Amino acid sequence: MLRPESKPLFKKVALIGVGLIGSSIAHGIKGLNLAERVSVTAQSQRTLDIVIKLGLADEATLDQQKAVSDCDLVIICAPLGSYGRIIENIGSKLNSGAIISDVGSVKQSVINDVSPHISEDIHLIPAHPVAGTEHSGPNAGFAELFKNRWCIITPPPNTEQLALDKVSQFWSALGANIEIMSPARHDMIMAMTSHLPHLIAYTIVGTASDLEKSLTNEVIKFSAGGFRDFTRIAASDPTMWRDVFLNNREAVLEMLQRFSEDITALQRSIRWGEGDKLFDLFSRTREVRRAVIDAKQEKMYD
Amino acid sequence: MLRPESKPLFKKVALIGVGLIGSSIAHGIKGLNLAERVSVTAQSQRTLDIVIKLGLADEATLDQQKAVSDCDLVIICAPLGSYGRIIENIGSKLNSGAIISDVGSVKQSVINDVSPHISEDIHLIPAHPVAGTEHSGPNAGFAELFKNRWCIITPPPNTEQLALDKVSQFWSALGANIEIMSPARHDMIMAMTSHLPHLIAYTIVGTASDLEKSLTNEVIKFSAGGFRDFTRIAASDPTMWRDVFLNNREAVLEMLQRFSEDITALQRSIRWGEGDKLFDLFSRTREVRRAVIDAKQEKMYD
Repeated sequence: MLRPESKPLFKKVALIGVGLIGSSIAHGIKGLNLAERVSVTAQSQRTLDIVIKLGLADEATLDQQKAVSDCDLVIICAPLGSYGRIIENIGSKLNSGAIISDVGSVKQSVINDVSPHISEDIHLIPAHPVAGTEHSGPNAGFAELFKNRWCIITPPPNTEQLALDKVSQFWSALGANIEIMSPARHDMIMAMTSHLPHLIAYTIVGTASDLEKSLTNEVIKFSAGGFRDFTRIAASDPTMWRDVFLNNREAVLEMLQRFSEDITALQRSIRWGEGDKLFDLFSRTREVRRAVIDAKQEKMYD
Repeated sequence: MLRPESKPLFKKVALIGVGLIGSSIAHGIKGLNLAERVSVTAQSQRTLDIVIKLGLADEATLDQQKAVSDCDLVIICAPLGSYGRIIENIGSKLNSGAIISDVGSVKQSVINDVSPHISEDIHLIPAHPVAGTEHSGPNAGFAELFKNRWCIITPPPNTEQLALDKVSQFWSALGANIEIMSPARHDMIMAMTSHLPHLIAYTIVGTASDLEKSLTNEVIKFSAGGFRDFTRIAASDPTMWRDVFLNNREAVLEMLQRFSEDITALQRSIRWGEGDKLFDLFSRTREVRRAVIDAKQEKMYD
């Protein structure tokens, strides 16, 4: 992963926001010398103080316009709901030829939100590192977060190859495996692999906490039987996830509708004692587990 | 955990069935000298050959009646759907004063199924070690499976204290923490902590595998975002889980109904862009995660 003798890929990189992902990127840039300078901007001085203390930035400022000046790469690492405000503020301040990228979990909405506010000489190259933990904030980051994880890049039509290559090189250097696909395809896949599972986990943990108090306490006490896995997922950052659902509405509703039909069918099978139907499904899903293990998606923390 | 100098708790223990749980118990009995003799019965000679090869039994037979003769403890370690057949076969062959127990994930149905077939001098003491892995079969067992995990014991009214104490001692020796409660309470708690999560995991993995083929393949490829956790749960033993749902129907349907209402409300919030409602739930569920961690249910494999 070390590339000590190579020239930095970028002159100045700006990170707009430094939660788990932003601070992990900063750790990676600093550790691997991927940029000559890093500027970080955040919404509070308290966050910037942490960034300074951790030595993650050459420049830490509340002023987004100042942060992006003279940058050849700007990465939005903030919740999807804030992209509109951010790009309205910095869009006209970007250097000619600069790349603007992001790390959001939805990609079509990024293109819709950002494109109208940048001029033609700016390269918009959205990206999504499929990595995370249940922890959030600038202290949660670490350089190895992206190692052997996917980074999906979703360039709009007519993206310049050179700019795309630089973003790919950047994420490769951080340890990620690169996949390039259309924003719409990305959003549909993630609705199924990530957004729907999060929605379900949030729901069931909510359902459990709405039970009569003593029952909820016992559910927590005996949570090892499956529920515990859901609580980990349901501890993810609330703002980020609210914005994911609001920005990937169509794909999430489509997958949720399919799921609802399927669970209603199972509910009926349980009510009417149709053991064969239950057994058939429970056998079929084992195959998917084997495929996940074969795809080496197991034994990596997400 | 070692108790080398103590006298074995039981003279002869019979295990009816040797999947993950049965073979783990056998490993524990042998390693800790909890019984003078262990007899194992299974449905196939192939399974018994594995048991003999692993040195898990003093006696391995296809004949259930032979297996339970002269036993002071008999533990049913087979799917819930087979209890009726088993107890009809062995009920009249149990030694006077013997304890009959089990390891099933539902408890009221055990009492309903077993009680009518045993005489008054037999002690029925159902138990549920809340432990498991995604692996099944006699080769999957290991003595440490129960260490620091809950074992919930659900004695019917008027159970003799001495017999209950012996079952508690047995599970304590295997490393489990003992909790005693009513069968109905157990079934309701497990419907929420274990049965509903399994049902949901089976469903979503099924939903994903019903997508257009290339999309399913990409869901598997990028499964790290949450879906992967569901595939692990959905790889659990199909027969065991079919029987769980058929035997805990009322409690599962009740919890599933609550869950369905809650996810329908969220679906509506997503459709109408009600970000505040999403944010409120997503914040609230974090508290449950903290409670799970405080209850030390985290960092133990289930």
